[in-house]
Amino acid sequence: MPAAPDQETFLSLGIHRVMEPRGVLPQLAWKLDNTPLARPTETLVNVRTLHIDSASFTQIANACERDTERMSRHILDIVAQRGKMHNPVTGSGGVLLGQIEQLDEVFAERHGLAIGDTIVSLTSLSWLPLYLKHIHTVYLDRSEVEVEGKAIFFRSNPLARLPIDLPQALAVAALDVAGAPARVAVMVQPGQRVTVLGAGGTAGLLTLCALHQHLGSSGEIIAIEYSKQALQDVAALGVTDVLVSGDATQPLELVERVHDLCRGRDYQADLAINVVNVPNTESATILLTKPGGRILFFSMATSFTAAALGAEGMARQVEMQIGNGYMPDHGAVALQLLRDYPTLRAIFARRFGQLARENI
Amino acid sequence: MPAAPDQETFLSLGIHRVMEPRGVLPQLAWKLDNTPLARPTETLVNVRTLHIDSASFTQIANACERDTERMSRHILDIVAQRGKMHNPVTGSGGVLLGQIEQLDEVFAERHGLAIGDTIVSLTSLSWLPLYLKHIHTVYLDRSEVEVEGKAIFFRSNPLARLPIDLPQALAVAALDVAGAPARVAVMVQPGQRVTVLGAGGTAGLLTLCALHQHLGSSGEIIAIEYSKQALQDVAALGVTDVLVSGDATQPLELVERVHDLCRGRDYQADLAINVVNVPNTESATILLTKPGGRILFFSMATSFTAAALGAEGMARQVEMQIGNGYMPDHGAVALQLLRDYPTLRAIFARRFGQLARENI
Repeated sequence: MPAAPDQETFLSLGIHRVMEPRGVLPQLAWKLDNTPLARPTETLVNVRTLHIDSASFTQIANACERDTERMSRHILDIVAQRGKMHNPVTGSGGVLLGQIEQLDEVFAERHGLAIGDTIVSLTSLSWLPLYLKHIHTVYLDRSEVEVEGKAIFFRSNPLARLPIDLPQALAVAALDVAGAPARVAVMVQPGQRVTVLGAGGTAGLLTLCALHQHLGSSGEIIAIEYSKQALQDVAALGVTDVLVSGDATQPLELVERVHDLCRGRDYQADLAINVVNVPNTESATILLTKPGGRILFFSMATSFTAAALGAEGMARQVEMQIGNGYMPDHGAVALQLLRDYPTLRAIFARRFGQLARENI
Repeated sequence: MPAAPDQETFLSLGIHRVMEPRGVLPQLAWKLDNTPLARPTETLVNVRTLHIDSASFTQIANACERDTERMSRHILDIVAQRGKMHNPVTGSGGVLLGQIEQLDEVFAERHGLAIGDTIVSLTSLSWLPLYLKHIHTVYLDRSEVEVEGKAIFFRSNPLARLPIDLPQALAVAALDVAGAPARVAVMVQPGQRVTVLGAGGTAGLLTLCALHQHLGSSGEIIAIEYSKQALQDVAALGVTDVLVSGDATQPLELVERVHDLCRGRDYQADLAINVVNVPNTESATILLTKPGGRILFFSMATSFTAAALGAEGMARQVEMQIGNGYMPDHGAVALQLLRDYPTLRAIFARRFGQLARENI
């Protein structure tokens, strides 16, 4: 008898691996069953590297006085206790790299996978059952841990195959924020004026390239960035029409600056993308968007209430979207941008490549 | 010389009334200039009643041991200190009722107003310069304060004329959540399956009627409500196809129940509206929406990160909107629903009418 649709949904989410508390999704669970064998609908990955979320890694490093031996034991303890690398203090996870060992056929077809493929998880480590046998090395400078272990993927968990033509560190950096350019690509319309706040960050640079690709010579891109160094990267990219050095937490000053740089033309965007990594930038984003325009808040520092009450108080009929990090093939979109824009790749290499690491 | 566009924007937002700190919007300001005279672009309202936000009113009542004399002094102190009724402890405001005394012509044309009209503010009291001369009465049972005072409206502040054919308490209750049905009315498409979580609340009931009006006999409405009493009101309204008694904070149990009640038909929504007044309902909302469907989070208890990471972890390509309380004419939409649906009006009368008050 085929399973009821809800049972299928539950299996694909991995509810059957939740040990406590019952009735929640794996991400919200305290403990998962991390038995390193793939059951029906599951895929088993031979884990090589954990890229631990920066907040989590810093917390562990501090708690262990940056002693990598102690950090190894600490990480092994968390995984033994919870059945996943889900830091109980910070609540965050990270991503993993590994090779496919056992493969569910539905999962294989959905992602075009074969046994032996090297993959990166595009969901948080807080979702994935993880079994660690050993930790080889902790890299203090890059939140990275080399391990021997196994992870379970459920059918619903997004992942990306690691490309063979791009350095691993660059690919992982791009995949980490891949949702932003993929979502932007389906939202932007030809001829639109699009403003990106936080344009010089990893997500911002990818977003600018995605916009450039979709707008072509039509429309207009306004890039706003606070850091002078990052602003130089935006300028080097050469895909923006107006470049603004400004602070999105200071709405009035920023609006005046954008207005002045637009020299009397309309300065308000049809579409605004917020990828700023600090809080309190909702007002500026709303003020820089046309009444009736759209906003995509992709920053995790966004406050739901500040956005909702801000738009209401200013009587702005803007449509505001919560940045959903998932789009089919969003990993592929981000990686293709790295191939299509050599300057973007060079900036990523400087920021995330081997050279950058040696300088840390 | 005409003002630059940004200067017009700043005037319409009321930046010129901000005393400290400089450079922020009136809502975020600690202190506004509450001089009770309308300057150019401003409108002066003779204030009769303050409906103080429930969180704010409760805090003041507790701090003053429910002594209405002390509460009056406390409220007068806040307004004298800040130039607005913006509770520094809760950060919230409320709405006011009053009559228009001096009227800006642009504002008059925008809202179809005349001097002497009785209006309700549709923006938070935290935006509006307020001068209080006297407090007549504090109504402990309904967060209401009768006052003698003046308020300033800026061109950007939304408001609604109080209708003469509806009891004041009912109209104010509907106007308080008017954004939800107005926004839903522009989002819903004929033939869609729409699920409302928190369907029995004030916003939920108005939303159901707005959906019924726009869907007609096409499509399907699934109503989910936790309170048994409120569920009876939803049933009495008679506009829903599937009625679900359930708890949106328990996603798996709720999904199973909705699935069972839909008896094998597809149970996932094209459009889901979240108007639940408790936190942790994002997962259930996402699971009850089709991959590729849309979600409108109108609840102020929504967590931006829970929604974003939840959709990502479940690999659901849903479009999630932040409920923006402002739509042109959103007050009129909500009031018209009270006229068009006599059962809705009867439920509101029981919940918010004079009779309800006497029972408190």
